Amino acid sequence: MIERIAILGTGLLGTSAGLALRAAGFKGKIVGWNRTPEQAQLALTMGAIDSIAPDALQATRESQVVLLAMPIYATLDFMEKLSGVLGCDHLVTDVGSTKRLISETAGRLFNTPDRAAFLPGHPMAGKERGGAALADAELFRGAVWLFTDDPECKRSTHSAELVKGWREWVVAMGSKIIDLDPARHDELVAWVSHLPQFVATALSALLQQEVGDAPELKDVGGRGLREMTRLGASPYSMWRDIAYTNTEAVQAALLALEQRLAHLRENLRTPELRNEFEQANLFRREQP
Amino acid sequence: MIERIAILGTGLLGTSAGLALRAAGFKGKIVGWNRTPEQAQLALTMGAIDSIAPDALQATRESQVVLLAMPIYATLDFMEKLSGVLGCDHLVTDVGSTKRLISETAGRLFNTPDRAAFLPGHPMAGKERGGAALADAELFRGAVWLFTDDPECKRSTHSAELVKGWREWVVAMGSKIIDLDPARHDELVAWVSHLPQFVATALSALLQQEVGDAPELKDVGGRGLREMTRLGASPYSMWRDIAYTNTEAVQAALLALEQRLAHLRENLRTPELRNEFEQANLFRREQP
Repeated sequence: MIERIAILGTGLLGTSAGLALRAAGFKGKIVGWNRTPEQAQLALTMGAIDSIAPDALQATRESQVVLLAMPIYATLDFMEKLSGVLGCDHLVTDVGSTKRLISETAGRLFNTPDRAAFLPGHPMAGKERGGAALADAELFRGAVWLFTDDPECKRSTHSAELVKGWREWVVAMGSKIIDLDPARHDELVAWVSHLPQFVATALSALLQQEVGDAPELKDVGGRGLREMTRLGASPYSMWRDIAYTNTEAVQAALLALEQRLAHLRENLRTPELRNEFEQANLFRREQP
Repeated sequence: MIERIAILGTGLLGTSAGLALRAAGFKGKIVGWNRTPEQAQLALTMGAIDSIAPDALQATRESQVVLLAMPIYATLDFMEKLSGVLGCDHLVTDVGSTKRLISETAGRLFNTPDRAAFLPGHPMAGKERGGAALADAELFRGAVWLFTDDPECKRSTHSAELVKGWREWVVAMGSKIIDLDPARHDELVAWVSHLPQFVATALSALLQQEVGDAPELKDVGGRGLREMTRLGASPYSMWRDIAYTNTEAVQAALLALEQRLAHLRENLRTPELRNEFEQANLFRREQP
């Protein structure tokens, strides 16, 4: 039923979504737009989109589903613009990493019977570096795709069907859907996504200061060090919006880890160290 | 020139060393011993050793090179025993993760013209779980193998040649040798190896507390979370000795990271966050 999709933002996620839709058998039209035209051109060359939209808003009007694949504040800006030009025969969805602010905005600007639907989404997939060049049709396979939809909102029958259709394409791209309340989402990802990122950033920045002048010594750490600092390559440009829109939950998670590290530091020679290792072992007991 | 090697401790590293020596073309005899006989039997079945020694000390007397592949305090115990039974036609070497205490003990008990040589070694290779079953002939390929030898010690010509011979086998197993002062070694590995481990342990233990009751939510974190907690599976039994023998350097590294995390937490909404990401990006700029 979905035959025309506009992808606004053809970076890593947007371009990967185009490729994944094609790989999953999507036969309709995909039009792409990007703030910097080079990324849109690359997405076109890679076959993720059929054409480049000269004008983003015009492209959304001609599509049924609009995928916003850009940082959070840019997503919020587009939500304001799109709410004025789209009607109840459209669905807008996104991939933003925090959902409370976006879900609140969706409730204010979308999701009434005479307005476009907005389905707040967050695929838990990515790479430490962005850009269309790293896009991958398999990026979403095996990943969790979170939605923080409002079960109470009243949509037109048509836009409700578009929501159902998009969820089916997400499954077809290989993702497992989990539905969450927006506040619970932001709290959860603070622990399992944002905390690991900020730890990797702090650890990498600290090691740059301590051993950065002796590049040959970086090899010494081996696979463990490489893995623990891989996310250190993540760009500020993406994480700034996350830090701004999930500040309290991230602060709470960071403070809890600081306290846990201090506890461990004070117990390097006591039996309590065994407890910490055993708790950590438990967390990993069923993981690959 | 080395024709008879005894591997005491046929866990992950000892068994991998036997396999790697064979893969590198070592044609001599390799005898193995392990505290728990099952691990020695497994090493024998895997072809890492030619025979199981019924008695560890007897096996060392009949070998030219003794590889101690066990935790640090067990290594120190064996150093005491071996110094009484081996002479200047033997080399003892080890794989312990801290080197100051082992190097001091080597200076006290070995490395005179009439005593056995002791070459303190530390291959920067391993897995988050131990045991012969996970051993791999390729474990040391591309890894750094650190030595903290005393350049001033006076050895017999014969044992000095055994030292040279073992270093050649380490290179043949695919490792890159770096020589370091023992104190510098312990300080360096506190940053690039022990700190990442203890951070992974603290992060895993914290997440076990926060989301451990909802295993389906562990998937949400994806690859980043998996990598940042993989070392959380490491056993206390191995890390206890490291925590005991490198306490001050590990404490200093942990405290520095706690401060760095607090700094980041206090600057989630200031331009200083950009600096932290840029420093982290620098550390990763030449890494795969």
